[in-house]
Amino acid sequence: MEIRAGGPGRAAAPVAVTMRTPGHDFELAVGFLFTEGLLAPDGLAEVRYCGLGEEEQRFNVVSVSTRTPFDAGERRRATPVTAACGICGVASLDAVEVRCAPPPAGPRVAASTLLGLPGALRAGQRVFDRTGGLHAAGLFDPDGALLALREDVGRHNAVDKLVGRALMAGELPLSDRVLMLSGRAAFEIVQKAAVAGIPVVCAVSAPSSLAVEAAERLGLTLVGFLRGDGFNLYAGEGRIDLRS
Amino acid sequence: MEIRAGGPGRAAAPVAVTMRTPGHDFELAVGFLFTEGLLAPDGLAEVRYCGLGEEEQRFNVVSVSTRTPFDAGERRRATPVTAACGICGVASLDAVEVRCAPPPAGPRVAASTLLGLPGALRAGQRVFDRTGGLHAAGLFDPDGALLALREDVGRHNAVDKLVGRALMAGELPLSDRVLMLSGRAAFEIVQKAAVAGIPVVCAVSAPSSLAVEAAERLGLTLVGFLRGDGFNLYAGEGRIDLRS
Repeated sequence: MEIRAGGPGRAAAPVAVTMRTPGHDFELAVGFLFTEGLLAPDGLAEVRYCGLGEEEQRFNVVSVSTRTPFDAGERRRATPVTAACGICGVASLDAVEVRCAPPPAGPRVAASTLLGLPGALRAGQRVFDRTGGLHAAGLFDPDGALLALREDVGRHNAVDKLVGRALMAGELPLSDRVLMLSGRAAFEIVQKAAVAGIPVVCAVSAPSSLAVEAAERLGLTLVGFLRGDGFNLYAGEGRIDLRS
Repeated sequence: MEIRAGGPGRAAAPVAVTMRTPGHDFELAVGFLFTEGLLAPDGLAEVRYCGLGEEEQRFNVVSVSTRTPFDAGERRRATPVTAACGICGVASLDAVEVRCAPPPAGPRVAASTLLGLPGALRAGQRVFDRTGGLHAAGLFDPDGALLALREDVGRHNAVDKLVGRALMAGELPLSDRVLMLSGRAAFEIVQKAAVAGIPVVCAVSAPSSLAVEAAERLGLTLVGFLRGDGFNLYAGEGRIDLRS
């Protein structure tokens, strides 16, 4: 899917192409631009399919209109809260360095609540049931209630869809939420969570070393290998109640 | 890791940044440039660490010198055999369209041989043993002997390392080889295999629908969900002997 963006009175220009699982395309486009630091929480004017080209491409190009002038390069430099998520598209190591607003001190999540998240996530993975081939990201409240779940062939996209949904619903920042991932916790996932204000990130599989560093630097809680009756706590221990 | 490239007498310019697991960095840089269609099989002059910047970045920038003038944009347009692998970095759907040379008719691989590949791959995953967090790609001969294995946090990188190793060893095209992946079979993996001339691609998990389409279009054999005592055959059935 190609994501285009443009400000008032300007034609939308291509920003990125992502391999995605169709569905929740508008959320994906909006979430991507936001977590990339290219769209302010209140900056969305309209999102729609371009409807251009051949039949099979008609729903593969999404255009986002912003309330203020859009310039990818300018915004990247000017926005203090930003994230370089599409790392493969960045042509310099320096551009990977980002700054995010400090997360809230809370919430506090019981260890027993964490242990219930993988099952709740798995139960909601409708497309995985049919294909066995998709990642999932779920947004939970601190008591372990599943609030939203998105699936995608790419783990980043699943998170962008969740965040895009929240932006369009006016729910940002997600400062009282727990993000649960079906796979590994990558560096970019931690950054996206930080930009969206999500203080607790949990994953069924391993985090990367850079993800741990990012979580520490950004003040997030990072939980990995959350499966069966255990988990590893990599950063932000203060938000997890291990006695429960 | 930042990959730079330049032709004779020219300074190497940044081409891409990839999140990678350190190790086999030269293979990764060379393999990436080759499978992206930016480097000819006989086009490598030299590969080295730039050795620039701070201590911790010293081994994160690799510079590739090519025998003929290097221009990313020009080569992309001029080379008939190419692959758009870093899809997230491509700003147009059209750029995803690629053409690869037709693969050989063989080899022919016994179903019983396929069933042994996941175990052989898993036995060689040294870093996964310690971390539980890496992908692996293995290159096998048609009788199921493991010839080379590379691990990386990114599945694309593991394949690029295998292909870069083959290029530097003068073994391209890999027309009598089977590629085995620890995870899913993505579209870009199929394209990279096609560019390297690998006719058979196998994966422990699911292929994407686009990977199946690409395998069909490019004439490759694609095997998915290869685990336990079974597998799914998605394309190129002629190379698999199901009676064995």
